Amino acid sequence: MSGSLGFAALPGIPLVAPGDDLTALIAEAAETAGLPLAGVLLVCQKVVSKQEGRLVRLADVTPSEQARRLAEPAGKDPRQIEVVLQESRRVVRQGHGVLITETHHGFVCANSGVDLSNAPEDDVAVLLPVDPDDSARRLLAGLRPRAAGPLAVVVTDTFGRPWREGLVDQAIGCAGIAPIDDLRGQADLRGRELAVTTQATVDSLAAAAGLLMRKDAGVPAVLATGVDVVGDGSVRAMLRDPEGDLFR
Amino acid sequence: MSGSLGFAALPGIPLVAPGDDLTALIAEAAETAGLPLAGVLLVCQKVVSKQEGRLVRLADVTPSEQARRLAEPAGKDPRQIEVVLQESRRVVRQGHGVLITETHHGFVCANSGVDLSNAPEDDVAVLLPVDPDDSARRLLAGLRPRAAGPLAVVVTDTFGRPWREGLVDQAIGCAGIAPIDDLRGQADLRGRELAVTTQATVDSLAAAAGLLMRKDAGVPAVLATGVDVVGDGSVRAMLRDPEGDLFR
Repeated sequence: MSGSLGFAALPGIPLVAPGDDLTALIAEAAETAGLPLAGVLLVCQKVVSKQEGRLVRLADVTPSEQARRLAEPAGKDPRQIEVVLQESRRVVRQGHGVLITETHHGFVCANSGVDLSNAPEDDVAVLLPVDPDDSARRLLAGLRPRAAGPLAVVVTDTFGRPWREGLVDQAIGCAGIAPIDDLRGQADLRGRELAVTTQATVDSLAAAAGLLMRKDAGVPAVLATGVDVVGDGSVRAMLRDPEGDLFR
Repeated sequence: MSGSLGFAALPGIPLVAPGDDLTALIAEAAETAGLPLAGVLLVCQKVVSKQEGRLVRLADVTPSEQARRLAEPAGKDPRQIEVVLQESRRVVRQGHGVLITETHHGFVCANSGVDLSNAPEDDVAVLLPVDPDDSARRLLAGLRPRAAGPLAVVVTDTFGRPWREGLVDQAIGCAGIAPIDDLRGQADLRGRELAVTTQATVDSLAAAAGLLMRKDAGVPAVLATGVDVVGDGSVRAMLRDPEGDLFR
């Protein structure tokens, strides 16, 4: 990591529709903004999901008995809850009108990451990409020929946290960069071994990028510079094993 | 928020000792680096705690029966565990050699934020500041006369997260900036009301700053630019009420 980091919004990317050439839209936005395409490109999940057609019309959804049961006390649309359940492998917590689930990918988040805001039309739910690492890999493959230097792609989503109000963006997929920077075994400033120091690089980058992607800003992509674009790996490698997880 | 954010390490701040003039050290580091003192100054907890003398010699600690009981299966020093317990209001989880506690401030983290790495000498534990918001306020008061523009201060610490490996820096204190940006009631891009959108600004800034503060880097302070330095408030206002907390 250098001594400074920069995060620049890629402006002028329109609302994306299924099948749009997101690679071209991003490359053109960077060119228009005069930003060399190098560093870590952070793309919000919503445009990736829309481009991939991960949309469900609620009119086409028949809620299960479980969905009806969960929806009623929360005052939710049971069809929405049905979509959330179909996108999950288990319900982690429920209460206060919130359903915390573990998605098929293994992400623990509200409503399996299913979102209705900024959906292309009313009553359409936007689901997370089936494989966000693969989404990142495909974007990276498309952008590399146009890149001005080492490039990585991170797909981000906005997550809540236990114990703290306020949302922070996290990585749900990445390509061309190690998701975690493992400092274990290295020494601290006084030569003592650092016991547990694995830094979640892609999550830390996603958090700052999220400040430029506020939902009212219409900024679906941010270019981060100053980052060591090294290594590779899946965001899922960062997910804690159930046996090591104290908050199942 | 503007269309870009910058994060610059303030280099050359030495290992800090109790009573050092941290304000002067930071102002001089910024000047040496040619960085105008404006924006959000992020300072890692460790130097703040050391400056405030929040150090405990383990030789002076007599472990309680509870500390001995918790330390043994984890293979830890019971005096360390005693310090962790004294800094906590409750034990949230224990297992896998980790003790997750809620600090007197209300932060849920490993070992009450007590740290041995980069401590001034062996067998000295560094505790979190008694009131990190107050630490930030005092730093801000000292720095404002030297500031080149609107300035805020955020005290950060490195936290683990449930469900995900890898550490991310978070805010534990702030002054001169609203910790959360509340977008509730505003409309999304299609005019639909955003239901739950409160962005944890200071945590998002802390995360990116943490990438420049890696424990082996000797960078205890980072200056963030491009941020709207508006509002004010305590990081503790961001802590979820126990009644709304699904992960007690």
